[in-house]
Amino acid sequence: MTPAQKLEQTLHREIPISLEMGITVSAYDGKQLRLAAPLAPNINHKCTAFGGSLYSLAVLCGWGLLHLKLEEAGLHKHIVIQEADIRYLLPVDQNMQAECTLDEAAFRRFMRMLEKHDRSRLALDVVITHHNQPAVEFAGRYVVHG
Amino acid sequence: MTPAQKLEQTLHREIPISLEMGITVSAYDGKQLRLAAPLAPNINHKCTAFGGSLYSLAVLCGWGLLHLKLEEAGLHKHIVIQEADIRYLLPVDQNMQAECTLDEAAFRRFMRMLEKHDRSRLALDVVITHHNQPAVEFAGRYVVHG
Repeated sequence: MTPAQKLEQTLHREIPISLEMGITVSAYDGKQLRLAAPLAPNINHKCTAFGGSLYSLAVLCGWGLLHLKLEEAGLHKHIVIQEADIRYLLPVDQNMQAECTLDEAAFRRFMRMLEKHDRSRLALDVVITHHNQPAVEFAGRYVVHG
Repeated sequence: MTPAQKLEQTLHREIPISLEMGITVSAYDGKQLRLAAPLAPNINHKCTAFGGSLYSLAVLCGWGLLHLKLEEAGLHKHIVIQEADIRYLLPVDQNMQAECTLDEAAFRRFMRMLEKHDRSRLALDVVITHHNQPAVEFAGRYVVHG
């Protein structure tokens, strides 16, 4: 099983609403994670994606990337979202696609702090695109601890 | 049917994931709206409420209050979340309770702008409490247009 397939199973098992939302892991290359979800279970009254579902997809995209990077480092830690900002730029009227790309320098700083204090924070940006335009910009601050 | 019961039906019909989440309308007195959701369908791997579900409950609490106030004014407008910040202060390990209270002076300014331009913005704060402590603070900016 690939890390992406394993992450998808983890999300569905541990966060059951992610299964109701139909969230899948589209791609992971060690630096970027992409998640997707179909419109139908996440639709709103305007036949576009519900803002809460867009947020949930984004927060899980950041969480998933951090989970995979910690697994690669052989670490099993708690990852918690501490705070987040979200901006809705365009309505999304088709399947949702989220991507989160690691800032490697920031991740190295995060890992040094984690080794030293068994607690560290990382900011992760997630973009949801629509017709190749950014439709949602999400900035999350995650805390990791032992 | 009370406005609270009608809002609950509207949420479940128009945003189907709100039904999967088990969101209900607990109380509405013309100034404050309270929504609730059970922990079980919204649980995460730490047996607390998933951050995305907490966000969804909060964003719908603000949306619902604005929807009710516009209905009382006889207006049928589009209400869209434009941006939001959320801070997670405490984990929530029981049913979620969200509340949003109207700032009446801000709402009057919002209504004057809406009458003049058929478009207006309102900031709404939502708190999710846990054992009578604020566990989640949400600040949303909503846009209303004809």
